Amino acid sequence: MTSSPFSPSSLPDRTCYASSFAPSTVTIVRPCAACKVLQRRCVEECILAPYFPPNDPLKFTIAHRVFGSSNIIKMLQPEIPECHRADAVSSMVYEANARTRDPVYGCTGTICQLQK
Amino acid sequence: MTSSPFSPSSLPDRTCYASSFAPSTVTIVRPCAACKVLQRRCVEECILAPYFPPNDPLKFTIAHRVFGSSNIIKMLQPEIPECHRADAVSSMVYEANARTRDPVYGCTGTICQLQK
Repeated sequence: MTSSPFSPSSLPDRTCYASSFAPSTVTIVRPCAACKVLQRRCVEECILAPYFPPNDPLKFTIAHRVFGSSNIIKMLQPEIPECHRADAVSSMVYEANARTRDPVYGCTGTICQLQK
Repeated sequence: MTSSPFSPSSLPDRTCYASSFAPSTVTIVRPCAACKVLQRRCVEECILAPYFPPNDPLKFTIAHRVFGSSNIIKMLQPEIPECHRADAVSSMVYEANARTRDPVYGCTGTICQLQK
């Protein structure tokens, strides 16, 4: 079983701080991995660029294979404030990895094992 | 926290039996919920029909919103034997429900809580 990518203590706090997690303070290298994989121009406002750096194309490829890039963008854009988007992407990548390892049960398999 | 849709004891056994889980023994009502939602003709070979009955359109809508129908089909078709597809769909629907309830952490949030 793989451990989750979050420290459990970080979960209950959903307050948005102007912290180092805010994408504006992160150095964004373009084109991002998403635009590289999708072979499109990485624009200034690319919503995926802060979370998919070009040196880790596998991170995007796995998430894209399970959720699809348009769904990732849709899930990030309207409802998740910027300060929580890095965590949202990490949890999607974690779930996509679980689904790739176990195409039948994915993350649900891990939950079943933990509930035993 | 929501309990998972599987009995943990069912997880380790991945043998395919000619059992009542095989879609061929399930009565398939057409058009299925997937084809109804996507407004397309539900063909005889529709891979989604056995798992998305027309009386439960929300099941498909939620899975479609998170994974996308083409990704659900792609994930089912090449690698998962027919006898495991019902479980694969159930786990995807479970994960999609978790992501809808908690757009930041989804299922990963449940895993973090359980690992505490």
